Amino acid sequence: MITLNVDLGARSYPVLIGTGLLAQAEHYPPAVSRGRCLIVTNDVVAPLYLARVQQALGADRHEALVLADGEAHKTLDTANHIYDRLLQARFGRDCALVALGGGVIGDLTGFAAATYQRGVDFIQIPTTLLAQVDSSVGGKTGVNHPLGKNMIGAFHQPRAVIADTDCLKTLPAREFAAGLAEVIKYGLLGDAPFFDWLEQNMDALLQHGDKFLAEAIRRSCANKARIVALDERESGPRALLNLGHSFGHAIETTLGYGVWLHGEAVAAGICMAADLSRRLGWLTPTEQNRIVRLMERAGLPTRLPPHVSAQQLLEAMALDKKVTAGHLRLVLLKGIGGAVVTKDFSAAQLNATLAHYCREGKA
Amino acid sequence: MITLNVDLGARSYPVLIGTGLLAQAEHYPPAVSRGRCLIVTNDVVAPLYLARVQQALGADRHEALVLADGEAHKTLDTANHIYDRLLQARFGRDCALVALGGGVIGDLTGFAAATYQRGVDFIQIPTTLLAQVDSSVGGKTGVNHPLGKNMIGAFHQPRAVIADTDCLKTLPAREFAAGLAEVIKYGLLGDAPFFDWLEQNMDALLQHGDKFLAEAIRRSCANKARIVALDERESGPRALLNLGHSFGHAIETTLGYGVWLHGEAVAAGICMAADLSRRLGWLTPTEQNRIVRLMERAGLPTRLPPHVSAQQLLEAMALDKKVTAGHLRLVLLKGIGGAVVTKDFSAAQLNATLAHYCREGKA
Repeated sequence: MITLNVDLGARSYPVLIGTGLLAQAEHYPPAVSRGRCLIVTNDVVAPLYLARVQQALGADRHEALVLADGEAHKTLDTANHIYDRLLQARFGRDCALVALGGGVIGDLTGFAAATYQRGVDFIQIPTTLLAQVDSSVGGKTGVNHPLGKNMIGAFHQPRAVIADTDCLKTLPAREFAAGLAEVIKYGLLGDAPFFDWLEQNMDALLQHGDKFLAEAIRRSCANKARIVALDERESGPRALLNLGHSFGHAIETTLGYGVWLHGEAVAAGICMAADLSRRLGWLTPTEQNRIVRLMERAGLPTRLPPHVSAQQLLEAMALDKKVTAGHLRLVLLKGIGGAVVTKDFSAAQLNATLAHYCREGKA
Repeated sequence: MITLNVDLGARSYPVLIGTGLLAQAEHYPPAVSRGRCLIVTNDVVAPLYLARVQQALGADRHEALVLADGEAHKTLDTANHIYDRLLQARFGRDCALVALGGGVIGDLTGFAAATYQRGVDFIQIPTTLLAQVDSSVGGKTGVNHPLGKNMIGAFHQPRAVIADTDCLKTLPAREFAAGLAEVIKYGLLGDAPFFDWLEQNMDALLQHGDKFLAEAIRRSCANKARIVALDERESGPRALLNLGHSFGHAIETTLGYGVWLHGEAVAAGICMAADLSRRLGWLTPTEQNRIVRLMERAGLPTRLPPHVSAQQLLEAMALDKKVTAGHLRLVLLKGIGGAVVTKDFSAAQLNATLAHYCREGKA
């Protein structure tokens, strides 16, 4: 087992990474193992892992709430079901919530924990690669609103994250690949040696080699934790984490949410950011090719579907919440491992990238 | 104008106290006067004060949402109406919410501000005495759930509080008196000279003397701010603020919410806490009489209605969320100005106080 400490002063917490962890009682922090807790999970994850978590926690101190799977249930209404259950069971301020599932369960359960009686403890047991490397570090919690994703939320740090790599072995290949997009992102944005390591070990990762999975998760979380520690409330450096996301969100909006997985859109978005960076002279053609090649090896899309137009993408980007006061800011690359937040590009240069990807997609 | 600074490090903010403040643009912090903001108020307060706030803020930068008055609307559904409006108007993370009203509007708007896009700025313009001396300091925000009051919420500090004492002149006498119960509480729990000052100046307060109102508000807020600064997340000393509240909540539960105002129940609850403290030898009969007399002069109840039984109160107290692990803890008085959180009393002593108040009420 690897332990990574996320250093946030009084809100610091450990990320435990390894095989079989969720069934081992000793890894649960005292807040969970001593008090009463509510396990929140969904109907896909519950048959696979709920019994093991319940056994580890002991039968008498917890309850479980099994929700329907899917982003459609990441709503204020579902959060209210969690409050209902907590209040019906007379859970006090000393209770803890356990999020067992992917990003939706983590965000939703974290939000309920942030707002139940003005904040109770929670721990994350992320069961997807995306949640293990991304959602579980950073303290972002929230639910969707009909008018926008993640529009209702709070910052609330978990007491611990238990990343059991065995869970990844039951994950559909496409979801595993989507998680790899974020892993590759962490190499690109600030850790060139990790990008090299990923090039060397992508095959081992795709074969679910335990020690390779653990190392990829540790290094991704460490990179994210370093940036979050600089900027817990997201006013500055944390914007670097959005590498590939402005393009990616525009792709998701244009295709319709759910057509591509988030990680798939991010992968293509990172390729677009690399293309624009190369046009600006910040990235060599060789570096750009290394990025595209690694995404391809991970099984991720590096081009857009033929019907996506440059105009659609541009409009979707202009609506993105990361547009500050009318100026489009993007995360671009000054070399592999050197991400910057910038508006130092012309409309013509951005349009060249959009046209290239949309033409290329249609060729 | 008096300015009191609530010292919470990076989350420090000023409480401005004086006459006519809400109509004066210069008192609004830059977060509100420069960016876009949403004023949230209710249909009782809006006809009295909304136009003045809108004029101070300038017409082009704000919107207003007028809700129905009353605790019944302090719900997650109403919070969702605020999110709807913010999203329909495309308000970004740089917006601010302005809470114009009493405690319900403050708690609800503060909760929406705490959770919209993971937290945006808000300012409070409390229009009741209770909200000016109590709800506006401490950072508690929240809404009710059908199974419990204030069960959903967050800690979120305002950027500023504008306490305009002119608002108190339109307040019904009963609501003004209910606010005085909390003012008296601040003298009792840690500021004996303030209690003396209240005895000397109660008549001037009841006549709405501007400088007396401002001083009573300043001193109450300063006392609350001192305690909150020690204990922002409510794990220790902040419990002292609950003087009179365990008895008070039991009275409210027994009578049914809304029969007595919260401040009225707190006034009678403080008298009960004083009675128990005197039985323990911690308060002299003279001190107890001073407390009861001051509550009476403020127009507050110091006895219980005849139909309330000791058994009902005891059951309601046992359900209170301030009961930690089965032990009833109460805030009691070791002299005027010397509140303590304690379980150092016997069941027989507590029952004597309950029996006295319930007998006395029936006499």
